[in-house]
Amino acid sequence: MHSTARTAANRYPERVTYERDAVYAILDEALAVHVGFNTDLGPVVIPTLHMRVDDQLLLHGSAFGRFITTAASGAPLCVTATLIDGVILGRASSHHSAAYRSAMVFGTASPIEDERERADALAQVVESVIPGRLSGPHAARRPNTEEARYTACLTMPIEEFSMKVRAGFARDEPKDDHVESWAGWIPLTTTPGIPVPDEITGDRFPAPTYDPSVHRFRQD
Amino acid sequence: MHSTARTAANRYPERVTYERDAVYAILDEALAVHVGFNTDLGPVVIPTLHMRVDDQLLLHGSAFGRFITTAASGAPLCVTATLIDGVILGRASSHHSAAYRSAMVFGTASPIEDERERADALAQVVESVIPGRLSGPHAARRPNTEEARYTACLTMPIEEFSMKVRAGFARDEPKDDHVESWAGWIPLTTTPGIPVPDEITGDRFPAPTYDPSVHRFRQD
Repeated sequence: MHSTARTAANRYPERVTYERDAVYAILDEALAVHVGFNTDLGPVVIPTLHMRVDDQLLLHGSAFGRFITTAASGAPLCVTATLIDGVILGRASSHHSAAYRSAMVFGTASPIEDERERADALAQVVESVIPGRLSGPHAARRPNTEEARYTACLTMPIEEFSMKVRAGFARDEPKDDHVESWAGWIPLTTTPGIPVPDEITGDRFPAPTYDPSVHRFRQD
Repeated sequence: MHSTARTAANRYPERVTYERDAVYAILDEALAVHVGFNTDLGPVVIPTLHMRVDDQLLLHGSAFGRFITTAASGAPLCVTATLIDGVILGRASSHHSAAYRSAMVFGTASPIEDERERADALAQVVESVIPGRLSGPHAARRPNTEEARYTACLTMPIEEFSMKVRAGFARDEPKDDHVESWAGWIPLTTTPGIPVPDEITGDRFPAPTYDPSVHRFRQD
């Protein structure tokens, strides 16, 4: 992937890369993405759960909602996944920043028309957040074709993309070395709390456990 | 605030509210927002640190970057703040969801033209993430007007907005009560790690501490 007019960095080109594997790592680690599309009334940005399968993104939503009806008509999309890794503190106020990794994918999406295929894709989105959720003795019920009638699932080829990474310390200037202020960075991580079972579940089944190595829940 | 053509909910209207205080609570808790704008090449969504001051959002960025030059020209924006509170697991795959709170603000932004005023606004953005950072014996150096020449700061009135909240348990149907699967929800929280000082700082100054009650770092 090379820089295009859309993905070219005007500022801080050293922070921008176009490596497919690195972009995929961000897309896979992010639990959700923000999808931007344009409407007659201006731009709209919505959060949604996503999944990457090979060189495609899976996006889903209500078959009758604004996002899906716009996207399914072939409207250009921008899908942005952002991981906030921490806060960077400099001796100078202006060198404060977030530590983050952000990937952007540009393109259009196509609906999965076949209901059986769509039901399977919707199952994959759940499996991407909780691997093993739809298999084994404590599996949830898989989506059926009736449910797939109400929920659309779109595929978006990952062809045009870029990413931006900011890490490490602030770029303070030597003239500020004398400022008597703490400078460095503070990591931020996402941490799961204690699973809350609903009334029917009680303690009959094992709750999913968090696997920090893949940032996903695992159904044992 | 009432529903407008842009903020009206097609789907799940019970999840959507237009209460200013509730929208402000989401904007204030979120460390970053995603800003969408349209370009000749299609929609673009970028993450950025923000701040709310009364009924305005402060947005900043490189004075020469695509986001600022587009936004400063009066292009319509959509600013979305999303807090992922957890993962909701149903007995049916199709009732899985994220627990989340998301606020959207629509409108246009105006650059703060005065350099001194702009420098002060940029200071406020830092203060919003780390209250007390620019005051007291261990204050960082405040932005000067030269730095404000390279970093733009825009104000966006919070006039047209909506929010969407999803919480609680999955909406499983009685027909799935027999499915032998754990169902409930798993909270996710953002947790700070151990602050990492840069070489000059060492252990000379106290590191900022995290205040979970306001989801912000505090400089003591």
